[in-house]
Amino acid sequence: MDLYKYIKDVPDFPKQGVVFKDITPLLSNPEALNFATTSLLNSIENKKIDKVIGIESRGFFFAPLLARELNAGFIPVRKSGKLPSKVAQETYDLEYGTDTLEIHEDAISKGDKVLIHDDVLATGGTAEAVCKLIEKLGGEIVQCNFLLELDFLQGSKKLSNYKVTSLLHY
Amino acid sequence: MDLYKYIKDVPDFPKQGVVFKDITPLLSNPEALNFATTSLLNSIENKKIDKVIGIESRGFFFAPLLARELNAGFIPVRKSGKLPSKVAQETYDLEYGTDTLEIHEDAISKGDKVLIHDDVLATGGTAEAVCKLIEKLGGEIVQCNFLLELDFLQGSKKLSNYKVTSLLHY
Repeated sequence: MDLYKYIKDVPDFPKQGVVFKDITPLLSNPEALNFATTSLLNSIENKKIDKVIGIESRGFFFAPLLARELNAGFIPVRKSGKLPSKVAQETYDLEYGTDTLEIHEDAISKGDKVLIHDDVLATGGTAEAVCKLIEKLGGEIVQCNFLLELDFLQGSKKLSNYKVTSLLHY
Repeated sequence: MDLYKYIKDVPDFPKQGVVFKDITPLLSNPEALNFATTSLLNSIENKKIDKVIGIESRGFFFAPLLARELNAGFIPVRKSGKLPSKVAQETYDLEYGTDTLEIHEDAISKGDKVLIHDDVLATGGTAEAVCKLIEKLGGEIVQCNFLLELDFLQGSKKLSNYKVTSLLHY
């Protein structure tokens, strides 16, 4: 099944000059949703995973699906102020300014084998911050897993210490 | 399996005097995640569903899982400005001020059988706005489905035109 057919280019979103890769046509098609889930699972070599991390918000679409199939727990990494209990934080640089991601401090146990999932790997700044968060809590990152990767932004270079797989490449 | 054990009361979140029902312990436990998914599916009587709607952000955790099992498409309803293509909007009242939800205009076809999912049914304002959005686009709401319901806020009264089910009640 050609999943590329279900990714829609939206010019000038979120700002002028950027071409946004919209994955909602893939999500809204039952066969594409199922095929993408199965293909993401197939891209995970070592399936002994304790926790699957989904990064807010679009990482939440597939991470719980992967967690259930892997018999793992699902852990959300959220933007600042959204998680109610005690959190660990990581701040990272954006093009202009910074952003902060949070995870519940007790969400990862020492030695947990962790799969990180997000929809898109762009510059890699977000995923790198999440890797730092997980390691700060004693987790072991088994793989970083993305639905699609913008190869020209070279985000996988920032994640060169980890196994990185993406289903679709642009 | 007693899912209530996996819901954590967090006092004074997001503000003083409110007791927040935190579902992250349920999500992070593989057995509870699987049992909750199966139980949500069992609560859907008419399984002829074309589209499952998940409401940003915590509705995204289970809605794609339900969509895949029902062989339906998954459609995100998002906060204002997040969806890249042409949207339909609905503005609704909050305790103080208003909020706006959006859906891609082409996400629902006339006559689509739609399941609406969110994590929590509180006052029902959000779910009611989503029902209006779906009907504006010609969809037929088969059921509104929640992980947990705060009965004392009587949100189901606002949804009295629809079939409403919640797994856990407080």
